[in-house]
Amino acid sequence: MKTINIFGSTGSIGKNTLDVIRKNKKDFKVLGLCTHSNVGALCAQIKEFSPSYVCVVNEESAGKIKHLNKKIKLFKGEIGLREFSSINCDTSLMAISGISALKPLMINIEHAKKIALANKESIVTAGDFVLDKAKRFKTKILPVDSEINALFQLSASQNNFSKVYLTASGGALFDYKPKDLSRVCVKTVLSHPTWRMGRRITIDSATLVNKGFEVVESHQFFNLPYENIGIVIHRESNVHALVEFKDKTLFACMYPPDMRIPISFALSYPKRIDALQTLNFKGKLSLTFEPLRVRQFPLLDIVLNGAKRGGNSLTVLNGCDEVAIEYFLGNKIKFTDIYKAMNYMFSHYKQAKLKTLDDVFYWDTWAKEKTKEYLRTL
Amino acid sequence: MKTINIFGSTGSIGKNTLDVIRKNKKDFKVLGLCTHSNVGALCAQIKEFSPSYVCVVNEESAGKIKHLNKKIKLFKGEIGLREFSSINCDTSLMAISGISALKPLMINIEHAKKIALANKESIVTAGDFVLDKAKRFKTKILPVDSEINALFQLSASQNNFSKVYLTASGGALFDYKPKDLSRVCVKTVLSHPTWRMGRRITIDSATLVNKGFEVVESHQFFNLPYENIGIVIHRESNVHALVEFKDKTLFACMYPPDMRIPISFALSYPKRIDALQTLNFKGKLSLTFEPLRVRQFPLLDIVLNGAKRGGNSLTVLNGCDEVAIEYFLGNKIKFTDIYKAMNYMFSHYKQAKLKTLDDVFYWDTWAKEKTKEYLRTL
Repeated sequence: MKTINIFGSTGSIGKNTLDVIRKNKKDFKVLGLCTHSNVGALCAQIKEFSPSYVCVVNEESAGKIKHLNKKIKLFKGEIGLREFSSINCDTSLMAISGISALKPLMINIEHAKKIALANKESIVTAGDFVLDKAKRFKTKILPVDSEINALFQLSASQNNFSKVYLTASGGALFDYKPKDLSRVCVKTVLSHPTWRMGRRITIDSATLVNKGFEVVESHQFFNLPYENIGIVIHRESNVHALVEFKDKTLFACMYPPDMRIPISFALSYPKRIDALQTLNFKGKLSLTFEPLRVRQFPLLDIVLNGAKRGGNSLTVLNGCDEVAIEYFLGNKIKFTDIYKAMNYMFSHYKQAKLKTLDDVFYWDTWAKEKTKEYLRTL
Repeated sequence: MKTINIFGSTGSIGKNTLDVIRKNKKDFKVLGLCTHSNVGALCAQIKEFSPSYVCVVNEESAGKIKHLNKKIKLFKGEIGLREFSSINCDTSLMAISGISALKPLMINIEHAKKIALANKESIVTAGDFVLDKAKRFKTKILPVDSEINALFQLSASQNNFSKVYLTASGGALFDYKPKDLSRVCVKTVLSHPTWRMGRRITIDSATLVNKGFEVVESHQFFNLPYENIGIVIHRESNVHALVEFKDKTLFACMYPPDMRIPISFALSYPKRIDALQTLNFKGKLSLTFEPLRVRQFPLLDIVLNGAKRGGNSLTVLNGCDEVAIEYFLGNKIKFTDIYKAMNYMFSHYKQAKLKTLDDVFYWDTWAKEKTKEYLRTL
């Protein structure tokens, strides 16, 4: 029986994680639940999973919690989140979205034996800091992201591969012509063909910024040079990653597009637990692969160039992307303005090294302010 | 530099093996070449690869060899084959076809450090004897057969899988209606859609007897219970096998249908050498899977039932299949008479245990005679 703390329990990954735990109660016990502000969903989760600790990051929302069982300790606000992050447990599931995950993650590395990491921004903006600290504290960090999780599964056994391929569904706008992109509405971009995920990652899937971030994750988690990380379009999202050996033999890792599968793997590793959904050969199954047309996804190119530049580049791009998507989701800008913002920022920031974690936050704030300024000019 | 002895150097697998060696001369040195009777092809191979030992199993053909360099030792006939099998070497490639491989293989286990085994009949008819002896002599036996080789590759890393799937192209007659099968000619059955192989195995691919034999190989090599070995139709022959873990995640092993790839792997294992042909994502790649309709392939069912019965069953079926195919290739019987012969034999043999290797040969001879008798009545 492993104790689990869930950061971001009311989001898409959090709910999937609780579903895995619900179906494997003899293996896992929820120790703590943490949400930003969704108190309604949190209260239902408290009732079902009886955690010992609860955290609500938004203080105003925290005030809405009434009649909490006295055995449950409630943490409130940013300070509360810090305390919640200091609770010792077997496994944490880190699914706070965006760069906000970074501070609790860095603290939590000192207190969790294993962290199932669903947040990619922490690795993209501050991967060296996170992974170095995890190494020092001997905390195992397991990627939950399906592609990186698949690579982890494939490499858990043999790591003598010479190249890896991440698959990309191509997102909601794969078949759109460039000239039609400026008119797409939020609802269209949020209609991902294969995955049900959070809003930002779904939009990042349409621009392939998400795939760029996964390339960075692959680089960080597996020490792979960027030139050995390929992307291949695979619309069905059943194959998540492939590794290629020196003799060009490929191993592919396959499961249906259901986040509960990589979550189960990350929670139960090195064991495996029963699946909730399976690919099988009872009917016809078709897997198609086609080359990525890089020109179709200019933001991917920017992210990959940022990755090669290093330093603060990805922090700036991530901050810009987060704000631009927020504006798009709020119907303040057009979809193609996300492209414009990223382009603008990539040619108007000053490259700098990241010497401390504070530098990460500095450049994140700088990029967000600068992006807002720019977006106001559109 | 590893020394290699090739048994069956003028056949399809032998030629592919020499092509691998030709392209990797710094890794491999041909020590010995052995053919049944194709002296013409052998002489060309001798000229190119300068082996120290040469063996021609058919004595009459051996007589045709003239002007052999005095440094090369020539072995003739069955006795010569026995002596050739006793040459010490790093690796043997055993590609003699049919049950004739069994005697030289059993001797060779005492003299080769590693045997790349392309012959499946030896495992099907006498797997326990072969693998037990290999264990005693600490001789590594690596399967060359693409599906079993793929399983070996997948299991070399993790062997905690719960099920395996072998893929089947379905062979040359996949789209034929049962009523049309009696009329198919030899040329049609030999037109395999994806693989270029020897004649018997190509016909066994059309009846799926070959796939049944591979199920037996999987059972023998990986100690898998028969119920955990599945077959899935995959017409493109790019995925050769899949393993399924407890959580139903699948790993697939992929390479193009080119025997040089599993041969390279078997020769170079545990290293990998450069590929001669590769799957890539430069164009569209489509992989389709569909369930096997067992009723379409009655001989597969017979082989799998024979496997479960054990004892002499597979030896009898293999002998019958070999003779029936020989008759079909000689235009003496119709394609569907192979079905009739196998059906007849499966209901007219006496089950017996195989206590010694002599029992294997006894039942092989018995089955072949009995099959000939039966075929004469058609």
